[in-house]
Amino acid sequence: MGATGPKRVVREPGEATRKVRFGPFELGGDFVVIAGPCALESPEQVERAAQAVKASGAHALRGGAFKPRTSPYSFQGLGEPGLRLLSEAGRRHRMPIVSEVLDVTQIPTMLEYVDVLQVGARNMQNFALLRALSKIDRPVLLKRGFGATIEEWMLAAEYLLDGGNEQVVLCERGIRSFDTTLRNTLDLAGMAWVKQRVKVPVIVDPSHSTGLATLVTPMALAAAVAGADGLLVEVHPAPEQALCDGAQALTPDAFEALMKGLAGVLAATGRRLAEVRPLSAVGGTR
Amino acid sequence: MGATGPKRVVREPGEATRKVRFGPFELGGDFVVIAGPCALESPEQVERAAQAVKASGAHALRGGAFKPRTSPYSFQGLGEPGLRLLSEAGRRHRMPIVSEVLDVTQIPTMLEYVDVLQVGARNMQNFALLRALSKIDRPVLLKRGFGATIEEWMLAAEYLLDGGNEQVVLCERGIRSFDTTLRNTLDLAGMAWVKQRVKVPVIVDPSHSTGLATLVTPMALAAAVAGADGLLVEVHPAPEQALCDGAQALTPDAFEALMKGLAGVLAATGRRLAEVRPLSAVGGTR
Amino acid sequence: MGATGPKRVVREPGEATRKVRFGPFELGGDFVVIAGPCALESPEQVERAAQAVKASGAHALRGGAFKPRTSPYSFQGLGEPGLRLLSEAGRRHRMPIVSEVLDVTQIPTMLEYVDVLQVGARNMQNFALLRALSKIDRPVLLKRGFGATIEEWMLAAEYLLDGGNEQVVLCERGIRSFDTTLRNTLDLAGMAWVKQRVKVPVIVDPSHSTGLATLVTPMALAAAVAGADGLLVEVHPAPEQALCDGAQALTPDAFEALMKGLAGVLAATGRRLAEVRPLSAVGGTR
Amino acid sequence: MGATGPKRVVREPGEATRKVRFGPFELGGDFVVIAGPCALESPEQVERAAQAVKASGAHALRGGAFKPRTSPYSFQGLGEPGLRLLSEAGRRHRMPIVSEVLDVTQIPTMLEYVDVLQVGARNMQNFALLRALSKIDRPVLLKRGFGATIEEWMLAAEYLLDGGNEQVVLCERGIRSFDTTLRNTLDLAGMAWVKQRVKVPVIVDPSHSTGLATLVTPMALAAAVAGADGLLVEVHPAPEQALCDGAQALTPDAFEALMKGLAGVLAATGRRLAEVRPLSAVGGTR
Repeated sequence: MGATGPKRVVREPGEATRKVRFGPFELGGDFVVIAGPCALESPEQVERAAQAVKASGAHALRGGAFKPRTSPYSFQGLGEPGLRLLSEAGRRHRMPIVSEVLDVTQIPTMLEYVDVLQVGARNMQNFALLRALSKIDRPVLLKRGFGATIEEWMLAAEYLLDGGNEQVVLCERGIRSFDTTLRNTLDLAGMAWVKQRVKVPVIVDPSHSTGLATLVTPMALAAAVAGADGLLVEVHPAPEQALCDGAQALTPDAFEALMKGLAGVLAATGRRLAEVRPLSAVGGTR
Repeated sequence: MGATGPKRVVREPGEATRKVRFGPFELGGDFVVIAGPCALESPEQVERAAQAVKASGAHALRGGAFKPRTSPYSFQGLGEPGLRLLSEAGRRHRMPIVSEVLDVTQIPTMLEYVDVLQVGARNMQNFALLRALSKIDRPVLLKRGFGATIEEWMLAAEYLLDGGNEQVVLCERGIRSFDTTLRNTLDLAGMAWVKQRVKVPVIVDPSHSTGLATLVTPMALAAAVAGADGLLVEVHPAPEQALCDGAQALTPDAFEALMKGLAGVLAATGRRLAEVRPLSAVGGTR
Repeated sequence: MGATGPKRVVREPGEATRKVRFGPFELGGDFVVIAGPCALESPEQVERAAQAVKASGAHALRGGAFKPRTSPYSFQGLGEPGLRLLSEAGRRHRMPIVSEVLDVTQIPTMLEYVDVLQVGARNMQNFALLRALSKIDRPVLLKRGFGATIEEWMLAAEYLLDGGNEQVVLCERGIRSFDTTLRNTLDLAGMAWVKQRVKVPVIVDPSHSTGLATLVTPMALAAAVAGADGLLVEVHPAPEQALCDGAQALTPDAFEALMKGLAGVLAATGRRLAEVRPLSAVGGTR
Repeated sequence: MGATGPKRVVREPGEATRKVRFGPFELGGDFVVIAGPCALESPEQVERAAQAVKASGAHALRGGAFKPRTSPYSFQGLGEPGLRLLSEAGRRHRMPIVSEVLDVTQIPTMLEYVDVLQVGARNMQNFALLRALSKIDRPVLLKRGFGATIEEWMLAAEYLLDGGNEQVVLCERGIRSFDTTLRNTLDLAGMAWVKQRVKVPVIVDPSHSTGLATLVTPMALAAAVAGADGLLVEVHPAPEQALCDGAQALTPDAFEALMKGLAGVLAATGRRLAEVRPLSAVGGTR
């Protein structure tokens, strides 16, 4: 790919996937599931979501406090109070937490509350943000832009690695295509291709990519057998009441069934879910 | 979808998948694998491919005699002599055969040799061909056009069903997107969506959709756990010598490994490969 | 583009556009406008459309008798009686006529009635049809497939030229993109790119590409200044009653305004509309 | 488009385009051309570019100091010293200047030097940046994201208007499609559609959208007759030596020819280039 192509993110022949620690888990070894609601809405919602995903074996808790909404008239998230709710729920249920950072100025606040900073699809080429995140000592989960090629995604990761942060996780979340039947077109083969070439872990978001709860489980299982290192899944205690993307959120029951299904197909391919250990056992990131 | 939307192809609530017979197998029940070379090239190549796929448990043999090539200067296929080779290999190895029909005028010849007539992506909206195929008593495998929406694909099937042929199988083979890293973008979530809505079987072609042999096995396993009824896979005895699409063909060894992997992930999801019975046991289509 | 890339359709350095004759006009020199309804519906509709487009200076009359409809439940066209109506209207108003051929078996009928045979977007890679049309002595208007790259479009033309028919006209009619605000995405820059490279004339269809009458005139003027050799425009005497694609049809008044606008922008770029001469002056194609 | 759809950016029936002032010009009335190099490289390059575009009648000078480069290993721009060069050249040649802002933290610096702040395609949904720019009293030129729908583009403008900045200009610069022959697919019909619906000015960037200098002039003329309010064009004194995107930059001679061509086609459609007045005549923005 020439002098300006990806370098540091590329795996050398024979090199193993570099593991990324967050809380007591490692991404890049056994299969890891990050679950929770799209947006943080209220103390009750956060607590019920955290309980549910923990009970079914999720490894980490996700939830958005700063929401990148297409319209200024949509719910924009709870902001820092939401992060506090998420952080407290994570501590209560002994799960590391993942949340999205929208801007350079939010980084200090994020570092107070969050174990893994997520860069969303719309910010994948926000190079000022990537440069700033390359200087922190915290894992960054980099979603693929819905209009970004695989090489551009790898080069966005390169900004992080080149700046000094090697704790990078890639997340495929669907791209745009001419077919708008579903919210996005999950590029699972692209995920498998990039997984075969990079040394950082690669996970899949079957929720945003499909936009429909009935497709989340099939695509989650498909991601697992196609070689992904983990999942980012939306779970809501009451999807029909969600303030954001309810149609794609799993109910707690559906999520429990998904975790059982994952255990089965991973075993069939010689892999397994990461063992769930309490956060305290090894100390949190913070 | 209104008065001009899909009707006959849509599954009623509670309705089972309608099984499509070809040879001793049924598509729409246990998982079925159709394998063979992209193009029929020589008696030796056809025989070696047939032996290899049969030995690993493939249910049916595929191979193209009339090739729809983008350039008039590319190898155009062996034509009817190729069909004869394929048919004879199918008989020797007791496998029904699948081959592509390009035009209305080829239908009588196809009916002499072939158990399942395949309509390729470039002909998905060749309505004259669909109308003619709706009048034959032979299964039709309808590939999705690489520029076609899911609704258009369903409506192409509707032409077959509306004309009287209910032996229809849909095949997802990848669509075009802005990312050209891979040959096409396999729309596995779209496959799962359509599978949940139609009463005809739906299979996946992991070879054309990815264009790379290293991605065929991951995508084949993914298709199986995502709910597909079967696969159409390219296998060539010597991919590096193939006259057409060698980069995406599995070697016989890789195909054998794929079949074992499929058995595992299907079992993990409560399904199984169709039992391989000799063609003579139940009589061929012809 | 290598050994299988486009050859005969490519313009040599310094070579002029090869003119394609139809009736008294030539495509590839002065600007030519082909206009008429999407579908032929009735004697009155055909006559009123022919009168209107002739009165405003159109050079040729278009109309579909065999319609490639996405759904089998949509109006499929009048068939051969429609061609007869179109042909008679063309004779009465001294305009050559253009209509779409869907299948090899329709070619003899088309040759009885039609001056230019149009291959639609869905058939751009119907290679059996292209091979058959390469053997006739009549111009072929080859629309770009909505899922086809520019190279594939050039190679489809190559099938015609390689088979012996050099009377080929390319027509850009919009491609699919992720943005479905409009019916298609008119690739005007792609048109200009291909126009700079091929020796055959290239025209633009601003009607199908946009799907909205209010965009037809701006895109028609844009096509003219971007270097197109002509236009294919839908005009209907009463768009609100059209059986097919009424939203994109110009009224006779809007078409008259378009022709005046074209004359102006062509003059500003040193070009002009082809002079309208009666069909009898030089003898028709037939 | 419902409760979360575009509101403030939408034109009421009969409402005129709201004019946006920058320097002595107004966008939204007579046609305005903003020209200059992709990246600012050296004092000589900036001066020669400014001289050239001024001599041919450009209204404003553009140039990038902070470059959003896909790869961290590509030239990243001169930064603030580049802005100073641009600003000085603008003052010498009495042209307002336009440059891209990448991040919230750069806004104060930009306000010191720049008349119009450009938001690039990769930042169209950087909502933190949009919110911050909605609070400044300076025009914002909002490029369409290459993966953004027209509605998303309108909603990004809505963030600016809703926050209080009504000096917004939209700029179409091409979207991604499956055809990668050209750098992007210029969506000129989409531009015309949005122009018919919004009250803010809409301009076109024929340079980034095509990536080829030979297509810039045809697409610039096309944009003018399709109703755009202006252009953003790359001009470089020596394109073959450019550090960024040289293939798409016009030479000074080609730009001069373009300006003459524009005058012609605008006249043919009853419009004209904005009169070039010295910056001092009415006072600059700053």
